[in-house]
Amino acid sequence: MRSGASFRHGLSQSHDTHAIWTVEAVKQVKYHVIATRDLFDPSNTRLLDACPEAPLAPGDRRLLVIDSNVARLQGNRIESYFRHHGVETTMLSLRADEAVKGWDTVTTVVDAMNAFGIDRRREPVIAIGGGVLTDVVGFAASVYRRGTPYIRIPTTLIGLVDAGVGVKTGVNYGRGKNRLGTYAPATATYIDRTFLRTLDERHLANGLAEILKLALIKSAELFGLLESYGPRLIADRFQGSTGDLDAAAVAVTDEAIHLMLEELQPNLWESCLERCVDYGHTFSPTLEMEALPTLLHGEAVCIDMALTTVIAHLRGDVGAADTDRILDLMTALGLPVWTDVLARPGILDGALADTVRHRDGHQRLPLPLGIGRHRFVDDVTPAELSRALGVLGSIQARPSALVGGRP
Amino acid sequence: MRSGASFRHGLSQSHDTHAIWTVEAVKQVKYHVIATRDLFDPSNTRLLDACPEAPLAPGDRRLLVIDSNVARLQGNRIESYFRHHGVETTMLSLRADEAVKGWDTVTTVVDAMNAFGIDRRREPVIAIGGGVLTDVVGFAASVYRRGTPYIRIPTTLIGLVDAGVGVKTGVNYGRGKNRLGTYAPATATYIDRTFLRTLDERHLANGLAEILKLALIKSAELFGLLESYGPRLIADRFQGSTGDLDAAAVAVTDEAIHLMLEELQPNLWESCLERCVDYGHTFSPTLEMEALPTLLHGEAVCIDMALTTVIAHLRGDVGAADTDRILDLMTALGLPVWTDVLARPGILDGALADTVRHRDGHQRLPLPLGIGRHRFVDDVTPAELSRALGVLGSIQARPSALVGGRP
Repeated sequence: MRSGASFRHGLSQSHDTHAIWTVEAVKQVKYHVIATRDLFDPSNTRLLDACPEAPLAPGDRRLLVIDSNVARLQGNRIESYFRHHGVETTMLSLRADEAVKGWDTVTTVVDAMNAFGIDRRREPVIAIGGGVLTDVVGFAASVYRRGTPYIRIPTTLIGLVDAGVGVKTGVNYGRGKNRLGTYAPATATYIDRTFLRTLDERHLANGLAEILKLALIKSAELFGLLESYGPRLIADRFQGSTGDLDAAAVAVTDEAIHLMLEELQPNLWESCLERCVDYGHTFSPTLEMEALPTLLHGEAVCIDMALTTVIAHLRGDVGAADTDRILDLMTALGLPVWTDVLARPGILDGALADTVRHRDGHQRLPLPLGIGRHRFVDDVTPAELSRALGVLGSIQARPSALVGGRP
Repeated sequence: MRSGASFRHGLSQSHDTHAIWTVEAVKQVKYHVIATRDLFDPSNTRLLDACPEAPLAPGDRRLLVIDSNVARLQGNRIESYFRHHGVETTMLSLRADEAVKGWDTVTTVVDAMNAFGIDRRREPVIAIGGGVLTDVVGFAASVYRRGTPYIRIPTTLIGLVDAGVGVKTGVNYGRGKNRLGTYAPATATYIDRTFLRTLDERHLANGLAEILKLALIKSAELFGLLESYGPRLIADRFQGSTGDLDAAAVAVTDEAIHLMLEELQPNLWESCLERCVDYGHTFSPTLEMEALPTLLHGEAVCIDMALTTVIAHLRGDVGAADTDRILDLMTALGLPVWTDVLARPGILDGALADTVRHRDGHQRLPLPLGIGRHRFVDDVTPAELSRALGVLGSIQARPSALVGGRP
């Protein structure tokens, strides 16, 4: 930890013919990401004492907002856990997927907070579910009385390594993916692979897409781990049923979380818009919204990464063999590299234009440089997009076609 | 200005059986409150160059969100101003009062931002109107793409000295006054008394209630100014038609803004819940919502202040003569000290309970100590409320009754 001397706070007043006041203030933010196993085993006390800013003690009460699937599978066990520790709970069970990730779901959470009569400082809302659920609850909490604390307990892989680790909340609006939201970290996020036991393979692959993203731009080592263990981790649902697979599950999730936090911490409010963790998120917001409800978030990200890998390949930044390795790994993980939405005229140009608007007038497009490194470009043209799309189209029809058969 | 060395930022990781990451980060916030006269006179360049963080130049474009009353009275002049300076504008005219201060109005603003294709960093939304309008636009901007800058141009007195000066945005939800919102300062607020020329007396009094609040808790001098000049400032609509009235208008508004900023700056995100500027805001949120659309915000605040002045008087903290001066000034400014909503059984107890929830389980109720000072109390009882209500009821039926006829 460093302490910063470059921050300014105070009130100053200058005067020409009229007064001008300048207010400067500094907000200190702190949050924890806490790994554990079997969080809701009655003997596990992480939830009670691991986060100094949000302790939980007998006699407390909490509002739980929980994904309806998780509630069905584990609701009783979760309620028992709190009862065992003398904590009174009210549980709001919610359907949470991209199609309902909108303001209406926020108001459902707000209504529950009103009915609960939540104490805006001492009773953090506990969100239990996937990335959609934690994004929606985080948004609701962050605007309720202008900010009520919340705790995240992700139950999906994408929640564990991505949505649950950062500080972004939000909902879709119209066709705009996460068009409305806030930067509001959960006081604590609890990372528990145990939840993945009941997750289907598609949702595991969905999370692996975000892990693959980090590997591609930041870590050849993590890429290697995914090549060696990815499919077996999916089959094992990250449960570590052998020592080897357990070590791999820990290595992959911890490394992904650490790489993510390394990028987020110095740029928590995205004052710098060149974010390598935006890799795979240039075209995918539009693809995901246009394809609703066909593609999961990580699937749309993977298609974006497939396309941008081809762009990097055509620019000479990723060799043919590495391009094949990347696309092969995507396929091995059960991730798509294509959606027919891509074939709609103008779709990529429109997606890029919207992202440029989001990135202050520049593309700031992270592209892989080999495997494990990246660079930013600002000069992708419609013609280049069209060419890459053609190449990707031919590859997806004929996998592993680049080496020796480069189009 | 001071620079702070006590802020921490960085990523740390500890490990027992599992990993724990702690993220600390610091957000620097800066905003300006810029006084001027006749902002939209073509020769006035404040809007172009007074805020270094939001310059405006020929060729730029801006989305204006404007109160429909202001649009009717001054829309053409405002558009001419921007045209004169080569700035292309799109104008969204909105009805903005407490009754429509809800999410639907936020989405109207969001739709306009989407249609405009706003650049989230370089095209601040410009909000022109009263406190309701700037609160709603501020909320919309603060959640649009997780934060788009905005500029405030308050056109009411309450906007000039209160809503336009702080960092709170928000909308009502159900019966909850400003139940949903954010802390999001406008990059700049332009303070221009010229707008008050067309404001009716009731809305001028509405703003004077918030100025009176600051006087009661922080400045006997400002209280004296209001006694000496308040009614004449209303009659003159703060236009300074004599040298004396101009000096008084500047002194009253500048002092109110300065006192407000002094309190806000060290506590911008209300980490400290003992806020003297919450004076008059303990019971008023409930009164205002219950009386909708009868009471303006400042009117509800004034009734709260009348009640709490009586509480302080009954506690021996405000003498009878000062109590009369306070209630007389309220009346002289055209402000109410009573609403029949007060007579509803349990209304004050319920209002206090909701405020206690908002203040982390304590009343933290600021009460005047004479005129110009305050203290916080935590021990107001239902019996005390009931007694104060009885006294206020008898006073309002017979003004200036305390001296010599103390109930």
